Amino acid sequence: MPRAEREQQMLDAAVQTFGQRGYRAASMDEIAELAGVSKPLVYLYLNSKEDLFTACIRREAAALVAAVRGAVEPEGAAGPGMPADRQLWAGLTAFFAHTAEHPDGWAVLHQQARTHGEPFAAEVAEMRAELAAFVTGLIGEAARAAHQDPAFGDRDVSGLAQALVGAAESLAQWANETPGVSAHEAAATLMNFAWTGLAGLMDGHRWSPTR
Amino acid sequence: MPRAEREQQMLDAAVQTFGQRGYRAASMDEIAELAGVSKPLVYLYLNSKEDLFTACIRREAAALVAAVRGAVEPEGAAGPGMPADRQLWAGLTAFFAHTAEHPDGWAVLHQQARTHGEPFAAEVAEMRAELAAFVTGLIGEAARAAHQDPAFGDRDVSGLAQALVGAAESLAQWANETPGVSAHEAAATLMNFAWTGLAGLMDGHRWSPTR
Repeated sequence: MPRAEREQQMLDAAVQTFGQRGYRAASMDEIAELAGVSKPLVYLYLNSKEDLFTACIRREAAALVAAVRGAVEPEGAAGPGMPADRQLWAGLTAFFAHTAEHPDGWAVLHQQARTHGEPFAAEVAEMRAELAAFVTGLIGEAARAAHQDPAFGDRDVSGLAQALVGAAESLAQWANETPGVSAHEAAATLMNFAWTGLAGLMDGHRWSPTR
Repeated sequence: MPRAEREQQMLDAAVQTFGQRGYRAASMDEIAELAGVSKPLVYLYLNSKEDLFTACIRREAAALVAAVRGAVEPEGAAGPGMPADRQLWAGLTAFFAHTAEHPDGWAVLHQQARTHGEPFAAEVAEMRAELAAFVTGLIGEAARAAHQDPAFGDRDVSGLAQALVGAAESLAQWANETPGVSAHEAAATLMNFAWTGLAGLMDGHRWSPTR
């Protein structure tokens, strides 16, 4: 078996073990056994438990970002020619489908990578920043297209993107922990929550405490 | 000085140190120095670095929950007699004001407590569940009051509450990291994002991909 393929097997086993048992409780013995290789081979290929965990975070983060981008980019289900709500729907559906299909990978990114200090937290923060920048671009485009309110600036867009990413992270965890919640339902919940709000903003509406 | 008062001084110093330097990098020496007491006295009162950190998480979590509840409960700015959007606005304004006024406490809860494993992560998960239950109650009440859609059930409400809590956490971090973003602006961003969407739902509107 070629090295690259064997390495992916080790990462598969590691993601499953880290995601289900947690970073600290996971042992290199069980990862090697699950991968069907010897422990020295895992160390030879991946060097240390820390490096193995970092490799898991990078692989899972790249796969998640690619799934979301792939659904929204030109060749995806909802390219840039589509209205903003359809692009957002395509991106969110892909996000929740991916986190549902890879619950161990999502647990590694959302729980494990953030609960065991640096340098792991920095790796996942980078992925989060990439997703937030992507959503910022999407909302910004929609705002420029609608452009009802010249005061609706870059900072408004950044804030909305941060709210959306935080809501999506929270809902992905909720969906994976709540029996019977499908990716479609999670994405629809977030569209119901966010879109009419965002759509109202694009039309120049703002919620006001003095209204 | 009475013991309780001296203990609060130690916790003040510990929250500042943990929040600004991180749990691992913080030393008991600097916490004692900042509190103006001897290191043995810190150990005598709080037992260990782990117990001191746990005490910080509990105090900061209780203060944050109390600030939000206090703004929305009968004696607060927007009691249960107020419309749901005013109650939510009052709760969010209190949340963002508290996290802005206590950036070190928020860093302890949102970043430090979640990035150093158990039992710290469980402490903050409990606070999060309490806030989510509170928001669930608020959205549920509004939904029952409007009651346009009998299919709008408990799970919808839970999902929306999870989205709102995730969005609020994400925005609190963004507000504290972005110069010049006030608590009022962060709360207004979230109301703009969420409320028109929630308001639309209460009126029986749902976003649909096939619309």
